[in-house]
Amino acid sequence: MLLQRIAVVGCGLIGGSLALGLKKRGFSGEIIGCDRAEVLEKARARGAIDRATTELAEAVGEADLVYLATPVVTILDLLPEVAKAAKPGALVTDAGSTKVRICKLASEVLPENVAFLGGHPMAGREVGGIENADADLFAGAKYVLIEEAHHRDAPFDSAPTASGLRSESPLGSASLREGAEKEFVEWIKKLGAEPLRMEAETHDWAVALVSQVPQLVSTALASAVWDETDEDGLPLSLAGAGFRDMARLAGSPYDVWRDICLTNSENIARGLERLEQRLERMRTRLRSRELEEEFEKARQTYAMLKRGGKE
Amino acid sequence: MLLQRIAVVGCGLIGGSLALGLKKRGFSGEIIGCDRAEVLEKARARGAIDRATTELAEAVGEADLVYLATPVVTILDLLPEVAKAAKPGALVTDAGSTKVRICKLASEVLPENVAFLGGHPMAGREVGGIENADADLFAGAKYVLIEEAHHRDAPFDSAPTASGLRSESPLGSASLREGAEKEFVEWIKKLGAEPLRMEAETHDWAVALVSQVPQLVSTALASAVWDETDEDGLPLSLAGAGFRDMARLAGSPYDVWRDICLTNSENIARGLERLEQRLERMRTRLRSRELEEEFEKARQTYAMLKRGGKE
Repeated sequence: MLLQRIAVVGCGLIGGSLALGLKKRGFSGEIIGCDRAEVLEKARARGAIDRATTELAEAVGEADLVYLATPVVTILDLLPEVAKAAKPGALVTDAGSTKVRICKLASEVLPENVAFLGGHPMAGREVGGIENADADLFAGAKYVLIEEAHHRDAPFDSAPTASGLRSESPLGSASLREGAEKEFVEWIKKLGAEPLRMEAETHDWAVALVSQVPQLVSTALASAVWDETDEDGLPLSLAGAGFRDMARLAGSPYDVWRDICLTNSENIARGLERLEQRLERMRTRLRSRELEEEFEKARQTYAMLKRGGKE
Repeated sequence: MLLQRIAVVGCGLIGGSLALGLKKRGFSGEIIGCDRAEVLEKARARGAIDRATTELAEAVGEADLVYLATPVVTILDLLPEVAKAAKPGALVTDAGSTKVRICKLASEVLPENVAFLGGHPMAGREVGGIENADADLFAGAKYVLIEEAHHRDAPFDSAPTASGLRSESPLGSASLREGAEKEFVEWIKKLGAEPLRMEAETHDWAVALVSQVPQLVSTALASAVWDETDEDGLPLSLAGAGFRDMARLAGSPYDVWRDICLTNSENIARGLERLEQRLERMRTRLRSRELEEEFEKARQTYAMLKRGGKE
């Protein structure tokens, strides 16, 4: 067992759920939570963490695995500090919703003897916070893992640092990294998630389409209906199950999405533009039979989702 | 009990659910189903109807209440035939998703001694058909009722027809109409729905915003993702709970929506255009903090839906 001590940086919905999930599935090491004091108190009360600190360096310094689960821009802010504090041989991973910027920065700032594995659990809820954390949040979800060319190709073994990695470990550092990564992936599987490897660019385009554009569309729909709703409550008071589904994402917190929009703006803009064009085309054909093709493709997507994953 | 015999024309999801709901809540009269033979067979097997006929005139001729539950354009096609077949004193109502065209035609073709009450149960599922009918489908849903100026203002009492309405009923025809309508509304309430009266124009604009535009957006999103999805299954394979919500409506059958788009195209086009403009504005501000306002309005809509109705 290489991962004996895990620092969870950001103990909200994702970090909290990871910690609770590890505990539930028998992780016997120590989980150190790092967040604001009031969040840490709740995380401890829920039994998610064993130790709590508001100091990043303290949380990270002894950890075999550093799990960064804050909004994306905070991850970008924290990475240089993590780079300084992480111990040789540590594995750093994250749960940020966009990957290109994070993986690029990680490859720039982390020392050779600290490994990085970008990650994105495709699980979430429209409500955040440790209050809503759930040991089974990741069950049935895809868990994207990004391999960085930097770490994959670097002559890792041949570049031990002054910190004495070699003397600390009987393994070579490359195999140490491999072992730690393998163990982490095993934990992901135990949480019920399905690891899926891809490049950061592929990820960022894919999630723009299936996660980020849908989020902004839900926001736009709900916001538009809000603007139209008068004192009588119409049209909102007529909303049925369909609109409720479409507006569920509209409850998502802006701070998370601000970071996502900032760090994946090109992909999102491209996706939104294509959607606008499609809506315009449909709008000009409302009275024709040409919408049938759109409905047919949509039904195939619906059917694939039904067959595919969890409901 | 004025409504002793009910003709349900169109025994799919809505008509079937109405019939099952009435039975479950103790309706002791006769329910006559009218549809294609294979649908009628299923409706009978499910216990939704007592008598079955593929002939509209036969179904309608003896009915105290005629419940039209086909797609909108079929309702428009059927109304002239219903007008010929309905018995004096009958109440005709419908469950069509757009109301201006239907109510206008009803006021034109129905004789003075046949009452019309436009209706729209704001309940539904993305899967249609008698197979999916549910006695509790309307529970917790709004049920829009439209009053027609034609019937509201017409000198109903003073215009008995040759068909001898007066002799058939000890009540004046206006009070007969009132009584039948009241009884129908009582049944709607027993089904768990909340009757809501409004004008046809108000309804059609409101549902364009909270039902029809959201449907087309779901279709567009799902169709766009279908076009992008390659042999690897990406990006669709990365879809999480959020996209599933947004794509649930994408399973809706085109034939129902074709009619809705045809008969409410102006309102839908106006709603879509506003949404396109909003998406464009958001797209050009992805890197600013100005999206916060959209998220804030969207959250208020979300919160109101949470507070408001059923989940």
